[in-house]
Amino acid sequence: MIELAQLRDTLRVRPVDGMATLSGYDAASTELIGGKSEANAQLAKMQQKLFDAHDVLFASKQQSVLLVLQGLDCSGKNGTIKHVVIALNPAGVRIASFKEPTDEEEEHHFLWRHRQELPEPGELSVFDRSHYEDLIVPLALNTSDESEVDKRIEEVNEFEKELVEGGTTIIKCLLHLSYDEQRERFLRRLRRDDKRWKFSLGDLETRRKWDEFQAAYGTVIAATSTELCPWYVIPSDHKWYRNWAIAQLLLGTLDSMGLAYPQPEFDLETIRAELAAPN
Amino acid sequence: MIELAQLRDTLRVRPVDGMATLSGYDAASTELIGGKSEANAQLAKMQQKLFDAHDVLFASKQQSVLLVLQGLDCSGKNGTIKHVVIALNPAGVRIASFKEPTDEEEEHHFLWRHRQELPEPGELSVFDRSHYEDLIVPLALNTSDESEVDKRIEEVNEFEKELVEGGTTIIKCLLHLSYDEQRERFLRRLRRDDKRWKFSLGDLETRRKWDEFQAAYGTVIAATSTELCPWYVIPSDHKWYRNWAIAQLLLGTLDSMGLAYPQPEFDLETIRAELAAPN
Repeated sequence: MIELAQLRDTLRVRPVDGMATLSGYDAASTELIGGKSEANAQLAKMQQKLFDAHDVLFASKQQSVLLVLQGLDCSGKNGTIKHVVIALNPAGVRIASFKEPTDEEEEHHFLWRHRQELPEPGELSVFDRSHYEDLIVPLALNTSDESEVDKRIEEVNEFEKELVEGGTTIIKCLLHLSYDEQRERFLRRLRRDDKRWKFSLGDLETRRKWDEFQAAYGTVIAATSTELCPWYVIPSDHKWYRNWAIAQLLLGTLDSMGLAYPQPEFDLETIRAELAAPN
Repeated sequence: MIELAQLRDTLRVRPVDGMATLSGYDAASTELIGGKSEANAQLAKMQQKLFDAHDVLFASKQQSVLLVLQGLDCSGKNGTIKHVVIALNPAGVRIASFKEPTDEEEEHHFLWRHRQELPEPGELSVFDRSHYEDLIVPLALNTSDESEVDKRIEEVNEFEKELVEGGTTIIKCLLHLSYDEQRERFLRRLRRDDKRWKFSLGDLETRRKWDEFQAAYGTVIAATSTELCPWYVIPSDHKWYRNWAIAQLLLGTLDSMGLAYPQPEFDLETIRAELAAPN
């Protein structure tokens, strides 16, 4: 297994002049592991370790974790949930999938609906898309002026700082997919009876604005990758690599949190004597 | 694999004169399957099938499922989640664990907090304890008068009828545990550093009122086991049997719901042509 520091160091976004240029990140990279079979073997072992580490988080009910999954259509947000998050005890997991806001949600501050889905102490929440959609989409589609986006960036940094100070560890993953691999995945999705429902014509509209979205992502993640809450760019053209990398990041993070089972003091002999009583 | 009708028929509660006498149900029964290794082998196969069946529910977003898990401390509500529910795509699962109501919850109708956790179309919700606590506990502790409990029983039946009519299939499982097996599980829990946190002295208080709780369960499940929403008594002294039986019930139910993937009509050639365009 890889050291957390090396993993973070390799995956962390590195903005230049306040901008992350995503075309400079190889979406097909597999640099940290020998290959698919090794990654899958490690993932299988990590699944048990993830269950155990998350169980301590759940039991101790002091801290919490928020895993943010951002990425374009087909980048593997749901795949990550199905292969990594599925390993955890569902009783301590909350998944929030953010679609287009409803009318009720539109009437509130943009962070209102995300606050409803934050992890309670002991929980791990997954944001499948997140508050970042409210920054990236207006920027890519040019529907907000720059000062409005800048204001939201500040609010998001403040929001996340507040969460961290309250005991939530945030792991922000951008699932970085190439233009060509997205094409292949769309085509596969359309061919399969059990996957076609995931496709919508709106996905193509977003794809038409590929460059605009890449630029918007670059701007937003550069401006919101802080010491407290850095962004990781997860090469996602290979699903096995994406799963392996996110599992490593999650497991390494849980292991670094200094979690321990609470040890209530009971007088075991008194309890034993009581339990021994017949009904 | 066993037929759903036979399974339901065997596990379903059978009140006599409006009362279910739990001592008449064998908590250690394993009557429907050859033994532990056969049950575990079938469970492993069912986990993949459960994933697939739930995926269709999730995709079609028409119906939903509510799995109610009731039972005393150590009866295996969380074990069921860890061994059965864990097989499902977490994106389509919601787990609600109902503890003592908070002050805010106390101010509302007793069903208010359960309504917040109902499954959306396409989801499966698990109630780890449920609205039934609000009937069973006052009855066992004799803190409500009979007419108040009767009123709640009517309200629960009405509530569940409304859910079924809205497209939710409800599976109600009473995890039936014997007095002796509960003792063994408490002792095991107390011995283990990673389990001790689950124990509280309040658990012993409930155990002291074993007969009262058995009677209250008997009354309540008899009065709320309807044609639409029957109660199943799951013999839970053997964890492997409990997991196997609930997995069977859940899988059989999903398979009986007539679910199908939605098939949107796309003109594949037009989409292919668009996708072929270079960036």
